[in-house]
Amino acid sequence: MSAELFRVVTPMDALLRIFEAFQPNVGQERVPLEDSLSRIVAVPIYASEQSPSFSRSAMDGFAVSGADTYGASDGLPSYLLVQGEVQMGRSAVKPVTSGTAQRIHTGGMIPPGADAVVMVEHTQTIDEQAIEVTRPVAPGENVIQAGEDLAVGDLILSAGKRVRPQDIGVLAALGIHEVVVMQRPIIGLLATGDEIVDRTSKPAPGQVRDVNTSVLSGFMKEIGALPKSYGIAPDDRSALMRMASKALSTCDMLVITAGSSVSTRDLTADVIGDLGMPGVLAHGLTVKPGKPTIVAVCNGKPVFGLPGNPVSAIVVYGLLVRPTICNLLGFSEEDTRPRIRARLRRNVASQSGRMDYVPVILHEHDEELWAEPIFGKSNLIYTLVRASGLATIPMDAGGKPEGDLVDVELL
Amino acid sequence: MSAELFRVVTPMDALLRIFEAFQPNVGQERVPLEDSLSRIVAVPIYASEQSPSFSRSAMDGFAVSGADTYGASDGLPSYLLVQGEVQMGRSAVKPVTSGTAQRIHTGGMIPPGADAVVMVEHTQTIDEQAIEVTRPVAPGENVIQAGEDLAVGDLILSAGKRVRPQDIGVLAALGIHEVVVMQRPIIGLLATGDEIVDRTSKPAPGQVRDVNTSVLSGFMKEIGALPKSYGIAPDDRSALMRMASKALSTCDMLVITAGSSVSTRDLTADVIGDLGMPGVLAHGLTVKPGKPTIVAVCNGKPVFGLPGNPVSAIVVYGLLVRPTICNLLGFSEEDTRPRIRARLRRNVASQSGRMDYVPVILHEHDEELWAEPIFGKSNLIYTLVRASGLATIPMDAGGKPEGDLVDVELL
Repeated sequence: MSAELFRVVTPMDALLRIFEAFQPNVGQERVPLEDSLSRIVAVPIYASEQSPSFSRSAMDGFAVSGADTYGASDGLPSYLLVQGEVQMGRSAVKPVTSGTAQRIHTGGMIPPGADAVVMVEHTQTIDEQAIEVTRPVAPGENVIQAGEDLAVGDLILSAGKRVRPQDIGVLAALGIHEVVVMQRPIIGLLATGDEIVDRTSKPAPGQVRDVNTSVLSGFMKEIGALPKSYGIAPDDRSALMRMASKALSTCDMLVITAGSSVSTRDLTADVIGDLGMPGVLAHGLTVKPGKPTIVAVCNGKPVFGLPGNPVSAIVVYGLLVRPTICNLLGFSEEDTRPRIRARLRRNVASQSGRMDYVPVILHEHDEELWAEPIFGKSNLIYTLVRASGLATIPMDAGGKPEGDLVDVELL
Repeated sequence: MSAELFRVVTPMDALLRIFEAFQPNVGQERVPLEDSLSRIVAVPIYASEQSPSFSRSAMDGFAVSGADTYGASDGLPSYLLVQGEVQMGRSAVKPVTSGTAQRIHTGGMIPPGADAVVMVEHTQTIDEQAIEVTRPVAPGENVIQAGEDLAVGDLILSAGKRVRPQDIGVLAALGIHEVVVMQRPIIGLLATGDEIVDRTSKPAPGQVRDVNTSVLSGFMKEIGALPKSYGIAPDDRSALMRMASKALSTCDMLVITAGSSVSTRDLTADVIGDLGMPGVLAHGLTVKPGKPTIVAVCNGKPVFGLPGNPVSAIVVYGLLVRPTICNLLGFSEEDTRPRIRARLRRNVASQSGRMDYVPVILHEHDEELWAEPIFGKSNLIYTLVRASGLATIPMDAGGKPEGDLVDVELL
């Protein structure tokens, strides 16, 4: 392979290379409406009914013919005979004739002959059978016309949208009982490193429990993927090759978390290179932490080699793995999440040509959001618990002084 | 009851009245670590092991005695004999004696006799058996000491924290297999209104399908509660009383969504007042939309009467219902969510003494986040799908001009 491929690339370049080299191939499934929460719409949903299905009152008051109130004022009110009340939940069949009105509640059906609703506040009760209207209403006033909200065939949710609670409400209103959503892609997770043992094991001296499988599984579940652990491979080429091949054959995408040493990372890169075509697309990111990342597509499936340090793995997860899962899902809103901005509580040094992600603690002070960098050794797992976000120091900024605004990704 | 109780109150006052009038009484349960994601920690979790459990190298390089590198420089390097390599995942038993070094990888155990690690970049290889060190390392340099990250007994997660993926990673690292979390509280949902039919029904003329049960259920699921629908009550006092009593006896909190007419809302207030002591605490909020809200505690359980309009129901859900569910759960971080700020795309009028919530569409433009208000009739359900957030116009602001910054709650 050419040396050009192995230069360190920006996260954006790495993503472009992945997206060019594979075609998402995740299936669809039909789920009951109540199970569609947070799923990704696979097939656009159109209104099969109009909404509202009948013309409704938007106010409590009296259904009238607007013409009967023309010119009405406090000094010269319109006098109308009240002929009963529109029952909620019933068809209004009795017409409103000229010179008459019917009591109506918010949501009640506009009776035939009526074209407007006078708010109760703009009427005076004369007796049980008569009111004075003190303000004119134009035809259509305080009425929601049938189909005014949604007409048959209107687009409600386009493909690629994540279903929110309020979206389910609108689908419920329209009598839609099922939604075709994207299947949850299976994301394989394979840990490597002779020093790594399963989290349920008791580590012998020199061994540590696997952290990354748990962390990455959680993030993947949160965005609707199905993480699947394929175990822990030793620092042995043939074992890693066998386990990675098996994993790749039964998942939609594979994430290998390399051990923390250079030799393990080299081994991982070597194995990924032989997993399938086209193979490794980039080796190294212009990012700290997260530089020793491997980006590949093998047999039509994205494959990532992530650094073993959990903070690095989280950074690269956010930069490459999550966007690729969103791509698998056809999720169209990944880039529209509003950014959180905060002021740096301390100076942060950075190197030009590199993006830095700094774990920070967020707190509000004087109506402003502040980001306090957590410095110290990067291999400490407790940083994960303490950090409420990752602040971005942009490439070519050469660091940021205290008080500057930075983007923060919530953790 | 005194008239004072029924004045319109601020959302904060309403919450204070609720929190004074009931004691959260939700149980705890022990769940496997992998099922603890997004649950609320019920019992503080302390480290039962130190981390790391042995002193580890933070770099790839050579384990040495720092004293052996004292004064080393490019011009006058320290010469050290290389005596093998620390195997990953193994106990390092062979000591590093004066004048010697052992190859070590990131994460490898520091051998006896060594107290520092020289980065490979600061060495020159002489031959298979010897290196020159060109920079001194102080004792402890590039070493993570046993227990430096977490000591036995250190607090990892306090009660009231929501478990995040990275928290699970840290618990995994420490060999913690189970977490005691708060049980999911059961939140009863009861819709009212003669015009409302179940979402699976075909509405007759004059009827509409229930929207609020679906919307509120979704929001409740998202924060870890268990919504439970108790059906739809007609506008009939004894039926509503019977259904509400039954619901209240089997849930931890009850939310009644009133029909949209004044008469239904009055009926709901009347029934809630008789559900149990102390009864109604506030009737009316200084909020638009959402003013006709009923706040009560009956038989030690919070009870809310929410306006029937879905946008109003969502506003009051966010102001009162969600904080009360968080209180039930003992969730301590409800108030620490960073606020999203955006610039108003249009003038928004408001009345002094009232907080306004305006559905908005968010978009980025020139590196700034803008909030475009969705105006129009408030009873349109399609507003729910279009809106990406609710902008807050503060009380006593008397509206906000275009370009002003407002807080936006994401929807």
